[in-house]
Amino acid sequence: MAKDTQFVSQIADIERDFPQWYTDVVLKTKLVDYGPVKGTMVIRPYGYAIWENIQRELDARFRETGCENAYFPLLIPMSYMTKEAEHVEGFAPEVAVVTHAGGEKLAEPLCIRPTSETIIGSMYSKWIQSYRDLPVVMNQWCNVMRWEKTTRPFLRTSEFLWQEGHSVHASEEEAMARTLQMLRVYEEFARDCLSMPVLTGRKTEKEKFAGAVATFGMEAMMHDGKSLQAGTTHYLGQNFSKSFDIRFLDSDGSLKYGYTTSFGVSTRLIGAIIMTHGDQRGLVLPPVVAPVQAVIVPIASKKEGVTEACRALKERLARTGIRVKLDDSDNSPGWKFNEWEMKGVPVRIELGPRDLEGGKMLVCRRDTLEKSEIFLDAAEEGISALLKQIAVQMYEAAAARMRKRIVGAQTAEQLLNGVNGGNFVRAGWCGCRECEDKVKEFAQATARVLAEENDAQTCVVCGKKAAHTVIFARAY
Amino acid sequence: MAKDTQFVSQIADIERDFPQWYTDVVLKTKLVDYGPVKGTMVIRPYGYAIWENIQRELDARFRETGCENAYFPLLIPMSYMTKEAEHVEGFAPEVAVVTHAGGEKLAEPLCIRPTSETIIGSMYSKWIQSYRDLPVVMNQWCNVMRWEKTTRPFLRTSEFLWQEGHSVHASEEEAMARTLQMLRVYEEFARDCLSMPVLTGRKTEKEKFAGAVATFGMEAMMHDGKSLQAGTTHYLGQNFSKSFDIRFLDSDGSLKYGYTTSFGVSTRLIGAIIMTHGDQRGLVLPPVVAPVQAVIVPIASKKEGVTEACRALKERLARTGIRVKLDDSDNSPGWKFNEWEMKGVPVRIELGPRDLEGGKMLVCRRDTLEKSEIFLDAAEEGISALLKQIAVQMYEAAAARMRKRIVGAQTAEQLLNGVNGGNFVRAGWCGCRECEDKVKEFAQATARVLAEENDAQTCVVCGKKAAHTVIFARAY
Repeated sequence: MAKDTQFVSQIADIERDFPQWYTDVVLKTKLVDYGPVKGTMVIRPYGYAIWENIQRELDARFRETGCENAYFPLLIPMSYMTKEAEHVEGFAPEVAVVTHAGGEKLAEPLCIRPTSETIIGSMYSKWIQSYRDLPVVMNQWCNVMRWEKTTRPFLRTSEFLWQEGHSVHASEEEAMARTLQMLRVYEEFARDCLSMPVLTGRKTEKEKFAGAVATFGMEAMMHDGKSLQAGTTHYLGQNFSKSFDIRFLDSDGSLKYGYTTSFGVSTRLIGAIIMTHGDQRGLVLPPVVAPVQAVIVPIASKKEGVTEACRALKERLARTGIRVKLDDSDNSPGWKFNEWEMKGVPVRIELGPRDLEGGKMLVCRRDTLEKSEIFLDAAEEGISALLKQIAVQMYEAAAARMRKRIVGAQTAEQLLNGVNGGNFVRAGWCGCRECEDKVKEFAQATARVLAEENDAQTCVVCGKKAAHTVIFARAY
Repeated sequence: MAKDTQFVSQIADIERDFPQWYTDVVLKTKLVDYGPVKGTMVIRPYGYAIWENIQRELDARFRETGCENAYFPLLIPMSYMTKEAEHVEGFAPEVAVVTHAGGEKLAEPLCIRPTSETIIGSMYSKWIQSYRDLPVVMNQWCNVMRWEKTTRPFLRTSEFLWQEGHSVHASEEEAMARTLQMLRVYEEFARDCLSMPVLTGRKTEKEKFAGAVATFGMEAMMHDGKSLQAGTTHYLGQNFSKSFDIRFLDSDGSLKYGYTTSFGVSTRLIGAIIMTHGDQRGLVLPPVVAPVQAVIVPIASKKEGVTEACRALKERLARTGIRVKLDDSDNSPGWKFNEWEMKGVPVRIELGPRDLEGGKMLVCRRDTLEKSEIFLDAAEEGISALLKQIAVQMYEAAAARMRKRIVGAQTAEQLLNGVNGGNFVRAGWCGCRECEDKVKEFAQATARVLAEENDAQTCVVCGKKAAHTVIFARAY
């Protein structure tokens, strides 16, 4: 127990200093490290494995919707960025610029993609001729760069990994349907793979993507009650098709501009997982994306048969498709318990001479720390079922926490008290930018999404008639 | 047949104008397109799917060798590049440089990675303390940038996708063993997944990687008899560990520099596939990495039962894990035959009323254009077996072509005649740089690899004693 205490003390207190807890956890579990250039991160194998699992799950869902993967160039001519007025205004201050290459000064500076609407739009313009070519729905998994002043691993770094989907449609309706479809894909993915409840909805004009007609977001509640924008989908109308001349000959013989969308999630999701589920002992990883789903710790491993039994169990579980690790290192069982708890492995299996005698193994859930026994004969079914159960119950627990922490407010004071108490605040808003800005000033909170139903009477700031009910929160 | 002729004529003659044939094929099959910035490419879905299949197959093989994936930053401080003298000399002329970001001039210019030995070395230096931490073997799938004067899609572009593996070992022996192990992994992958025979061996000092002690390459023979470097592995000795201070406390208590390696293949492999197997009709894709392995073309599709039978067949094949496409478009069967032949789909299945009556389907191999019948009842086993057979026979055919076109030379004239005839030339070399340069001058050929056994008597240039037997060839 002394060891345990010592160990836990290495991670800052999750309630008293959440930012430091986060930094301690991401570094000590070797998810990530700081890169040599300010604001960059190195995603270490344990962190990258989470990203690979996210990719695999999301990619399969994208394909089901008829989305194809492709790869577009990293460097975008600066003149492309300026073709869509709002877009350049939003992104120009954050771009990294290549001015020299191959030992020479470039005729036109190139920017490293902060997002690829412009360059993909220019290719779509070339590829799309007829309504028969539509819809086009492509996605790329790639790196992007946005030069940020304040950075934190996974949450905000100058370079990050993401996927960006881009589609073109013949009609506004179809494009809007795709925008909402992808929002649903993200929401279901968050629930089923990350055990993470989210609020989805339309963003305000102030919070929308630079160049979009409408942006929809999914917001997740972090341990400290702040919101994290975990994914967005954008209905771009004809803004980019007009800037990049994406036109098609329609079935009626007329030439029309297409309607485009884009949608993306990034390595930020890893930060969302950490801050949704983590506890004082460290990470609590959702089973579907955990790099290691079950770890076997041998007890009294020098006793006859223990090592062999652990190895055989590992083989059996691996064959079932469970990502299992046998920790047969020289460290003590207690040390291993701490280590794998900190690393958030969903299930720990303890196997020693007494368990073998009884034909059982002891399993300990990371999320609830509950222990139970499973018959060795039924190890595959038992562990598979337990992992599924953990995924569902982690979601339910997080959803219950979130529900409790969404509070209503009729007045500015109530709103402030709400966010000060670590809550999302549901409140009426007249719809004007001035009131939105005031919320930011007095409560450091922003409009995360518009609620689907407007059940508020008056604006929480000015008291005029409420045009929308808004979820306000402080945000990452 | 008129259509067929017309169609074929759209692709330049493979014997008379191979470069134009290549350009025609990569563009018309929609593998790739030119990006807006000179020297860049857009990898379209049909091309990217090949890359995804390459990634899946290689990644599984890497994991079996104990390699873990990670992700390191795109931007490298210029000062890092200059720490290893040969390295900077080799890469500095090709780098793209970021001088401005976030609206400001950077204090230190950053270069977009042309390769990541330097930045990964700097992280390894931080992570590795003890011999217990070794070996470290990591890989990343990423984009890199090398500003080239002359570019061609897949073969040489300013940005390309690749994997780069980087390892650190406690001893020279272990590092060299890893270097050779990865060369074998590449060679077996080329054989089993790309049906592509390669020659492997050590590179000369002139041809080695900038900063390596020794480079090993695999070279593939293209349709025109030129060689394409399809993958390389590098034994880096202590060059980078000394430049980046990668030291470890050994078991004897002394502080030692590690021995490092690196290894990589890129989207160039797609070019290698095209130019190894392609023919006058277009692509011939190896079954293991073909995006579509079998295409079903309905014959007389308006006749009763044909469409239903084709759909049912597609479902059955897909369930077996075969990547199958049903072309139920309005185009004529003849048009479809041409289209899918050009796109290199390994197996075409024709299914019409007569086939259905006989309980059979007609299958046509893309590689040999041979036709045969398979019982519909045994479609899954039949097509799976055929795909395996095609993979093996494509390899054997390519290997036979290559063997025939490796000729010996005792004199400079014979060497020149050999490469003029579209051959690889096996010849003695004294080992001096001057003679190597002369071969380049008079035959435009380079030393591709050193043969494992030296069975030559004299240098093909100067006539002195041969230190090595070399495979000379013109190269991409």
